[in-house]
Amino acid sequence: MIRVLLVNDARLVRSVMAEWLRREADLRVYDTPWRGAAAMVRAVRPDVCAADLDHTAARGLPPLNELSPPAAGRRPPRLLVLTGADRPALLRRAMEAGALGYVDKKGSPDRLVHGIRRVAAGERFVDDSLGLGFGKAAEMPLTRRELSVLSLAAEGASVAEIAGSLHLSHGTVRNYMAAITRKTGARNRIDAIRISHGEGWL
Amino acid sequence: MIRVLLVNDARLVRSVMAEWLRREADLRVYDTPWRGAAAMVRAVRPDVCAADLDHTAARGLPPLNELSPPAAGRRPPRLLVLTGADRPALLRRAMEAGALGYVDKKGSPDRLVHGIRRVAAGERFVDDSLGLGFGKAAEMPLTRRELSVLSLAAEGASVAEIAGSLHLSHGTVRNYMAAITRKTGARNRIDAIRISHGEGWL
Repeated sequence: MIRVLLVNDARLVRSVMAEWLRREADLRVYDTPWRGAAAMVRAVRPDVCAADLDHTAARGLPPLNELSPPAAGRRPPRLLVLTGADRPALLRRAMEAGALGYVDKKGSPDRLVHGIRRVAAGERFVDDSLGLGFGKAAEMPLTRRELSVLSLAAEGASVAEIAGSLHLSHGTVRNYMAAITRKTGARNRIDAIRISHGEGWL
Repeated sequence: MIRVLLVNDARLVRSVMAEWLRREADLRVYDTPWRGAAAMVRAVRPDVCAADLDHTAARGLPPLNELSPPAAGRRPPRLLVLTGADRPALLRRAMEAGALGYVDKKGSPDRLVHGIRRVAAGERFVDDSLGLGFGKAAEMPLTRRELSVLSLAAEGASVAEIAGSLHLSHGTVRNYMAAITRKTGARNRIDAIRISHGEGWL
């Protein structure tokens, strides 16, 4: 029996997906929104967390680490994510969090069932159609530091405020912004923010 | 028999939802992604289009008008939308397109079935939990003209470029930008763009 925890903020979709998965005799299915997912992991002890990366907190990345907490004497749940090729930042985040499974939401629902079984067996499972997204994730030209500067700028912070929060000089922040504009091929700072949102980097 | 066309870009979710709805004896269910939805409407002649407003075209509003085309001698399909209270711009767009039904994706799946039946009977159906979103949609402070200026600015256009595309003087564009910054309570232009994205206006 494979214990599966479905994580999805849209209850309407989540309930129907859970019910659909429960028809599989080898799956025991639980479900939760992102908020409270960590507590559900502790309570349910799933073999696999199948997490939809579209979550509703504005402009943030889903807290994937909460789904695989280190626990003494127990294997943490294996992580499978549902997303699209147009979300490279989410794919990159899932890779960094050590996800084993990557299911394309534009694919057939059967892929989710196969993916859960493969990941439960400790094998990698990646939908081919996500290839372009992984390519984009790998190509992302900005460093973590540059992304920090850009995300503060995108929140409306001035050069002085960015310098203050990141403990940098004004000149250094201006140099970062110039590098960001160049590396993203943007015309100016606002254009760099637009491009980075569009590519899913911010 | 109620003919229902489910519109959703995520095939994985759409197929499972369609299969789930097909258990209702009075529903005949078809499904399509947004691309090609207009052709499906012509082919299937649904009584109700149940459309998920999260569509994958970056930064645009879903083409709701294509779901209810005027047709000689026939009633156009009635429109039910699935969305969240955190998407006021989408709610406003659905109101403008004349949607009769508004189902909260954070609600129970049974609400979707009830909503489809009510809308098919020509009645309004609105989830209470969407109230806050409708409030926000009504409060949206920017005029259409200001939104045009802001969306060009968000694409990285300069004052001169915005003036050129909208046939305005530079001074008028600057006045619009000042009004936008004031009305959104923003610190500067980038902050106005951030706030407007966050509120779902852009």
